[in-house]
Amino acid sequence: MLDPELQKKLIAQNRRFTHGYHEDDPYMETFESDQDLKKPQPPLVKPPMAPKENRVALPKDFSQLDIKNDFAAVIRDRKSSRVYTQEGMTLAQLSFLLWATQGVKGIQGKAYATLRTVPCGGARHEFETYLLVQNVEGLRPGAYHYLPMEHEVEYLHPAEDMKTVITDTLCGQSWCARADVVFYWSMVPYRAEWRYGIYAHPTALIDLGHVGQNLYLSCTALGLGTCGIGAFSHEQACRAFGLDGEEEYIVYAMPVGTVREKDRAQEQAFYQFVTDQGL
Amino acid sequence: MLDPELQKKLIAQNRRFTHGYHEDDPYMETFESDQDLKKPQPPLVKPPMAPKENRVALPKDFSQLDIKNDFAAVIRDRKSSRVYTQEGMTLAQLSFLLWATQGVKGIQGKAYATLRTVPCGGARHEFETYLLVQNVEGLRPGAYHYLPMEHEVEYLHPAEDMKTVITDTLCGQSWCARADVVFYWSMVPYRAEWRYGIYAHPTALIDLGHVGQNLYLSCTALGLGTCGIGAFSHEQACRAFGLDGEEEYIVYAMPVGTVREKDRAQEQAFYQFVTDQGL
Repeated sequence: MLDPELQKKLIAQNRRFTHGYHEDDPYMETFESDQDLKKPQPPLVKPPMAPKENRVALPKDFSQLDIKNDFAAVIRDRKSSRVYTQEGMTLAQLSFLLWATQGVKGIQGKAYATLRTVPCGGARHEFETYLLVQNVEGLRPGAYHYLPMEHEVEYLHPAEDMKTVITDTLCGQSWCARADVVFYWSMVPYRAEWRYGIYAHPTALIDLGHVGQNLYLSCTALGLGTCGIGAFSHEQACRAFGLDGEEEYIVYAMPVGTVREKDRAQEQAFYQFVTDQGL
Repeated sequence: MLDPELQKKLIAQNRRFTHGYHEDDPYMETFESDQDLKKPQPPLVKPPMAPKENRVALPKDFSQLDIKNDFAAVIRDRKSSRVYTQEGMTLAQLSFLLWATQGVKGIQGKAYATLRTVPCGGARHEFETYLLVQNVEGLRPGAYHYLPMEHEVEYLHPAEDMKTVITDTLCGQSWCARADVVFYWSMVPYRAEWRYGIYAHPTALIDLGHVGQNLYLSCTALGLGTCGIGAFSHEQACRAFGLDGEEEYIVYAMPVGTVREKDRAQEQAFYQFVTDQGL
């Protein structure tokens, strides 16, 4: 057990991080952002990480996809799914999921901001998308990086022993290794700090939730299953994609896989403790 | 300008807050949550704050609502709207927005967790919804609290000089005061800390984004406009609903209003600096 006084102090610090602006904020008056100081703006997206021949174009025509178009039903039917059938996904399905979570709809100004399918404070869009692909039609298994400007993915490297990598990055949650693809989002914090400085970070996490919810709903609309993963290893997740852990690091992950209704009972096993403990 | 060394230190602290679990985390090994320690679970929702006669039942039948049922178009058309026409909303529209953001779909165990229209780490659902209502059919203007178990709102108090209250709580953003209703979400942190202790807070902010995105998409589907607001005053926002600022405090806000296509040009005025500065 943690020392109760230490725990109290840590919780108070963490709670404070989630607050809005305080009237007695000691920094607000003198704070100037790098944008205020006319420092150069960082790039809107991370440059490609691999040679051009590693790129795979993603289909942009979603008209052939079987999408559930009853909006209220999509909201109602969204749920977390942890049991995947490993049947594999199509490239068009993956394309839709990438577009719905980080797709670029336009550019503001010459190169001031990307406008995307998700909202983000100051349109900074400080996230990058990485994938561990196991079973997607047309993609060899391995680690990928999404290029939102081109709507392409680039193959980075084979993930040796991928099921172990997935499990280890996600703190031992081995059920995630049955996903057809695992989404990992990184944050490039300076993209938001350039505009918001020391005030950038709580909003960045909220913005990340916007992304995650679009993945949840899009999976529901496509009949796929997913689950938001808060427990991941900073070091191992960064290592999986060669991120430095300082100027870019993983902040959220979601496995995606095919699901079937008859596995819902098995899904309930994750909550067996509720019954066992009579909660 | 902040002292650069101080700024660097604050940014490093804030970045660290957004990391996942570290391999050298000094607390992980001895950490036990209050749930592990069998301490009593906090209530799943906040008890009603006002007498029963203040409650207004919300319609649960959404079949009469004009909902855009093209899922990909809802994702594509979602945008931030800051110019509202003040025509007023229906109670059924507000009901849909409350259901889509925090509606309860079921209870897990006897009273272990609520299952809602949004995902939340450990199904803790540590948020409460408050409204400043200006122009919703069937509701007198004032401050309200949402009762998710009953799908009702309870009238708390008249907000004297409501446009000033909205503007002041949202750091002077007076355009928000033209909304028909402003959503404010609070966090009751112990609901998540009971299970996750010192590790509860980053995930809580991501979970808040799930809620916000459902509001964005639901507004799009209903033809309404909204915008996520990261800049709010901790003290003033808490004061508006009588929250103590410690065990419950406001963490996110979104104004909602009626919009029309011809105001999109006016909307662009919020980005005039991009053109002016040749960005």
